[in-house]
Amino acid sequence: MTRQLFVGVDLGGTNIKAGLLDDQANLLARLSIATEAEHGPDHVIARIVQAIDQVLAQAGLPRQDVAGVGIGAPGAMSHKKGLIIAPPNLPGWHNVPLRDRVAALSGLPTVLENDANAAAWGEFWAGAGRGTDNMVMFTLGTGVGGGIIIDGQILRGAFDNAAELGHMIVKPGGRPCGCGQRGCLEAYSSAAATARRAIEAIQAGQDSSLKARLEAGQPVESRHVEQAARAGDPLAERIWDEACYYLAIACVNVQHFCNPQRVVLAGGMIGAGAFLLDRVRKHFDQQTWTVAQDRPEIALATLGNEAGFIGAAGAARLAHQQGQL
Amino acid sequence: MTRQLFVGVDLGGTNIKAGLLDDQANLLARLSIATEAEHGPDHVIARIVQAIDQVLAQAGLPRQDVAGVGIGAPGAMSHKKGLIIAPPNLPGWHNVPLRDRVAALSGLPTVLENDANAAAWGEFWAGAGRGTDNMVMFTLGTGVGGGIIIDGQILRGAFDNAAELGHMIVKPGGRPCGCGQRGCLEAYSSAAATARRAIEAIQAGQDSSLKARLEAGQPVESRHVEQAARAGDPLAERIWDEACYYLAIACVNVQHFCNPQRVVLAGGMIGAGAFLLDRVRKHFDQQTWTVAQDRPEIALATLGNEAGFIGAAGAARLAHQQGQL
Repeated sequence: MTRQLFVGVDLGGTNIKAGLLDDQANLLARLSIATEAEHGPDHVIARIVQAIDQVLAQAGLPRQDVAGVGIGAPGAMSHKKGLIIAPPNLPGWHNVPLRDRVAALSGLPTVLENDANAAAWGEFWAGAGRGTDNMVMFTLGTGVGGGIIIDGQILRGAFDNAAELGHMIVKPGGRPCGCGQRGCLEAYSSAAATARRAIEAIQAGQDSSLKARLEAGQPVESRHVEQAARAGDPLAERIWDEACYYLAIACVNVQHFCNPQRVVLAGGMIGAGAFLLDRVRKHFDQQTWTVAQDRPEIALATLGNEAGFIGAAGAARLAHQQGQL
Repeated sequence: MTRQLFVGVDLGGTNIKAGLLDDQANLLARLSIATEAEHGPDHVIARIVQAIDQVLAQAGLPRQDVAGVGIGAPGAMSHKKGLIIAPPNLPGWHNVPLRDRVAALSGLPTVLENDANAAAWGEFWAGAGRGTDNMVMFTLGTGVGGGIIIDGQILRGAFDNAAELGHMIVKPGGRPCGCGQRGCLEAYSSAAATARRAIEAIQAGQDSSLKARLEAGQPVESRHVEQAARAGDPLAERIWDEACYYLAIACVNVQHFCNPQRVVLAGGMIGAGAFLLDRVRKHFDQQTWTVAQDRPEIALATLGNEAGFIGAAGAARLAHQQGQL
């Protein structure tokens, strides 16, 4: 029997990451090339196909061993139709049939997946979600992304827009969010919100050790808030703690929603390690109910920024197994 | 081909409701008998079997036409094991293998379902959720129950405890809930909470047209709050509006969670009709995001208190179709 390989592609606004994996999630080759998004869809599609060729050449393995290609792509998209609708970080893309174009150019069966779902599927298949059937992932980056696995399947919903966990309202009437709502999780627990809240508070006259950075024209990012909180700065401590608190509220809500075995935290904010995880767990334990023994474990993601292409390859494997490729 | 019939049983603390349905959800016979829960599990199980016999006798149809029995039961239970764990309103029941005992006594293949899931499945199969694949139901009774249908399947979760939607936290740090949490949906939008909030406010000295009822020793229930709100009583108006507001927040959260086509409102509170529905829709429209066209319709349930046994019969039909009976 021929060995079955899967290529995963993580299409970002800046870079295209690709990896070649076998059926057991062993990573055989990986690479990252510039997206060159400014040259438009045709150019980017050619670069995706080039990345697929390159990753095979790197591993010295033949194309006929590849059972499928998975692409994780940003923004609104249709999994069913294989269509990219209008991603904010890929200018000029409108209703691009990415799946079928890559399949035609590469000669390989291809699936398209939302990038957040792909990353969650990566952790589920090969990372912190391994060994579970039901997992929820929060990705704490510039925004807050989400992915939900139910009984070993990616939750997509009626409009292909499920698991937008960053836009759960955790504080009704709270901070405005870019999405038009108020009090979204993303407005409190994303890296961008953590930094912005500190900056706003200092600009409004509150004292903080971060004031010097701001006055010197240096950037204040979430890791600076984290460092200041670790050093005991009261403002930074409050903001960091609230980021963890609202994330814990969101964990309680997903507990009662889909009852996962594990909740995985991913994205740039988890660079804080236990300083994030222990706080979220503490608030979760204080907030969640006591009437049933159905608490999910809360854990940090393990695949870093490789989760996207690993999960895209895993999505191709799943589609292959289910006879959809 | 023999006609395929299904018996649905809704096991409550006070009454056992049963119905006989065909494959197309046509209701051929129905009945309600007292549970007589005070006599313990053996007695109640015998009464369930009696209800199954009676409903067949009523329709004049033979037992061999019945392809399956579904039972919707309250409290913690295991669908997989067919076990009732410890329902608060069935004293003396601990780890009772209800499914297998009813199957043995009736001679009919049986499935056990959580009563909230059964009711949601009833609306999905034969009521307000008809025609969708993805539906969420909120049941606004003494508490707030939930049921979630994803791609035509009941969502159960890793611990058989999914869709506890009444315990989503909609107001962090808010009113204490019987479950040990604070700020649960149930603490604002259930019938009991709506009444209790009015009573507490009056007892704390706030003025209201409901004060006379209370002072006369008459009960104040959610329908009295509703009536007073309709008549323009400011306190009742505020409490009724907040019940609708927090329910709308919960609708936004399930929108982003599982992206259903339809959200169905059920339970005693929907007796208010448009006075509930229009408010929830208004708050939902004001709270939800503007960046994607993925709003669910919000609708009232249509099956009333028959949803439970209809859905239990439907669950038996589903298990039969999937070869699990």
